[in-house]
Amino acid sequence: MHFDKEPSTRPRVVIVGAGFGGLAAAKTLADADADITVIDRHNYHLFQPLLYQVATAGLSPADIAAPIRSILRKQCNTSVVLGRVTGIDSGTREVHLGDRRIPYDYLVLATGTRHAYFGRDDWEPFAPGLKKIEDALAIRRRILEAFELAESEPDPVRRRQFLNFVIVGGGPTGVEMAGAIAELAKKALTSDFRNIDSRTARIILVEAGPRVLAGFPERLSHAAAGYLERLGVEVLCGRPVSQCDDVGVIIADERIPARTVIWAAGVIASPAAKWLGAEKDRVGRVMVGSNLSVCGHPEVFVIGDTAHVPGPDGRPLPGVAAVAKQQGQYVARLIKGHIEGKVEAPTFEYRDFGSLATIGRKAAVAKLGKIELIGWPAWVVWSLAHVYFLMGTRNRMTVLITWIWAYITFQHGSRLITDSSVDPETSAVGTPATTPVQP
Amino acid sequence: MHFDKEPSTRPRVVIVGAGFGGLAAAKTLADADADITVIDRHNYHLFQPLLYQVATAGLSPADIAAPIRSILRKQCNTSVVLGRVTGIDSGTREVHLGDRRIPYDYLVLATGTRHAYFGRDDWEPFAPGLKKIEDALAIRRRILEAFELAESEPDPVRRRQFLNFVIVGGGPTGVEMAGAIAELAKKALTSDFRNIDSRTARIILVEAGPRVLAGFPERLSHAAAGYLERLGVEVLCGRPVSQCDDVGVIIADERIPARTVIWAAGVIASPAAKWLGAEKDRVGRVMVGSNLSVCGHPEVFVIGDTAHVPGPDGRPLPGVAAVAKQQGQYVARLIKGHIEGKVEAPTFEYRDFGSLATIGRKAAVAKLGKIELIGWPAWVVWSLAHVYFLMGTRNRMTVLITWIWAYITFQHGSRLITDSSVDPETSAVGTPATTPVQP
Repeated sequence: MHFDKEPSTRPRVVIVGAGFGGLAAAKTLADADADITVIDRHNYHLFQPLLYQVATAGLSPADIAAPIRSILRKQCNTSVVLGRVTGIDSGTREVHLGDRRIPYDYLVLATGTRHAYFGRDDWEPFAPGLKKIEDALAIRRRILEAFELAESEPDPVRRRQFLNFVIVGGGPTGVEMAGAIAELAKKALTSDFRNIDSRTARIILVEAGPRVLAGFPERLSHAAAGYLERLGVEVLCGRPVSQCDDVGVIIADERIPARTVIWAAGVIASPAAKWLGAEKDRVGRVMVGSNLSVCGHPEVFVIGDTAHVPGPDGRPLPGVAAVAKQQGQYVARLIKGHIEGKVEAPTFEYRDFGSLATIGRKAAVAKLGKIELIGWPAWVVWSLAHVYFLMGTRNRMTVLITWIWAYITFQHGSRLITDSSVDPETSAVGTPATTPVQP
Repeated sequence: MHFDKEPSTRPRVVIVGAGFGGLAAAKTLADADADITVIDRHNYHLFQPLLYQVATAGLSPADIAAPIRSILRKQCNTSVVLGRVTGIDSGTREVHLGDRRIPYDYLVLATGTRHAYFGRDDWEPFAPGLKKIEDALAIRRRILEAFELAESEPDPVRRRQFLNFVIVGGGPTGVEMAGAIAELAKKALTSDFRNIDSRTARIILVEAGPRVLAGFPERLSHAAAGYLERLGVEVLCGRPVSQCDDVGVIIADERIPARTVIWAAGVIASPAAKWLGAEKDRVGRVMVGSNLSVCGHPEVFVIGDTAHVPGPDGRPLPGVAAVAKQQGQYVARLIKGHIEGKVEAPTFEYRDFGSLATIGRKAAVAKLGKIELIGWPAWVVWSLAHVYFLMGTRNRMTVLITWIWAYITFQHGSRLITDSSVDPETSAVGTPATTPVQP
């Protein structure tokens, strides 16, 4: 037991959040003469770009997650704490985990975002979002249960409601979810049912703005919309959702009955700004300086989705893995330099290698520097990049095999309904507790 | 939509339970001139022999489960109903799923068992059992949390309690769980923590009877106990557990403080006997005739773990996959014969191909007919047999790769704490809601 060891006199770096940013910072500090502590409320790093595949029964949670301790186990200057930050005292330089205090000399906040309903939190029970593994499993359950409910429902009006799927938000997550649900309904499940034809499912992607994938060049947005429509997805752009409830959604003035509504329309930053009492933007991101530190606290850095960092075009950098990773590495080098007594430090500059989004098999769009790819070349790049960036060789192998298998068979292998909300005591598949259905 | 199709006049076979027995019956009836309905409360078939590997973070749930609809999707005479049976009316020949009625001409009950505390149901919160995927994930969470709690616990008495693991019951499940937890503590986790040495974990396997693996020849029992002890498991035979509570267990008169206690000591049959009003044995199994039908109801069959069928030595056949499968096939052939007008039918005879149990890497015992294997030959047979009997090529491939990977690296890849009971709002890893710890 090491509890009795002498307290170290080395500088203490505390990193909150083991997403792409926090983990990049921790790894870059592997050779630093400092004591690193990584705090996360989960015991695993999650590869969020593939979370939608867990939600659509393509992958298992363990395929896209790796234990943080395991990732950092050979890094002797680093310890991992499982816990949720409840506050920060920037005067005494302590991170609060409930009653526990963790002191720091340097603090890196990489606490990410959660989905947000922008004043309509009452929509959450009807339109769950996708940020955590638990969210993905809940959405998977909801999608699979909808088909089960339809199969055992004699009333055609209610059956229609079960077979309508609405995805709110046309960003990468919304596009990828819509494509994956369409493939599930139109390919994987077609022979599974006897009373319904899963191909009659309606998958509706709603976007308030004028086009899907607004962060991509217009040509790629149109290509993505085209692929979605070919898969049988109805793409409704320029139409905000005005209501979500237990019956479905209202889009513009049209009521669409749907048991399954998925929220991919927006995120809000973690409460880092609140903890620090720092200035924040409209979606809660902390306004940071050109070296990513917080005004008045040169020892506190905010990175990744939680930070508002202006890009070359003046707009804030997008909340993607590449930005978080580069920021994590940058901040770690800055801290190392400071510990070693360097005074000069470069400002952070984001190197944009491109962006990718997939719609389905052989259908993706990619912007790599000046190159724009559409269709299967983009899909190949997307697949390889995602396998490459996954954490851990075993995860890479199982994901690759699962994808190859799915490609050959059209099957989604993880179609398990676990922790069902459907009451098993009183009915066959009945009315779920959280979304009472009133046709 | 097929709801309006003409009712069929073919005989209706209803199978309740899609475990090894029910699924074997359904598949054998693929070419029968009958309408088959398979009812299960889960949407997947679970390969229970590997469930302990999900509980010990070796495999993912989807690796050992396959959607029932998917397994039977090409079998056009068969439909699948997701629901829980609430009763059976053997007069009107109907299965009740809450308010729903499913009529049958032939009924096959293959509803399995659940774990039982034999009058001490109050122990369940402290000593969860392992029958369902949800059980396995809860046990996995509990095991991984115990190490996390120990890592952040300064008090050595409480730390000891977190690092004690008690497995109650020395049958195959108990032996396999104990071995897997020992490998986790002594191998996979050794570099993960900074304040504790995971190798100091105590893993205690308690068996009330005189030896572990009582169903195996004595020589193999002793070999298994030897392997367990070499892995660092304390094997306590001949000592019944007299108390399970929030502090740990009392074995004989000794109090062992432990946060993690796992129940592998006994099962009780599903309520099939109650539904039928049939005669049952001490553990709730239905007493069936030599053709597995229920006395007075030649059209109702009970198979698998729910049936009491005397073996050649007079003792009931064990609750293992092979028995259930052979019974499912037998009953299906019987029903087919009856439909085709055959009157003669052979009685059921179990062909015992052997039994296997594994303790850890290169350590297993096997009885194959007259041949007894110990050590790595048994382990190779065990591994190949389990991969072979898994449902689905993709599952076979991912399990095989995961095992090869674990063999090379000593790592357990699925170490995710999901749906944690540890309160994330108020503390770092604190005291869980269900098992308050009082040192």
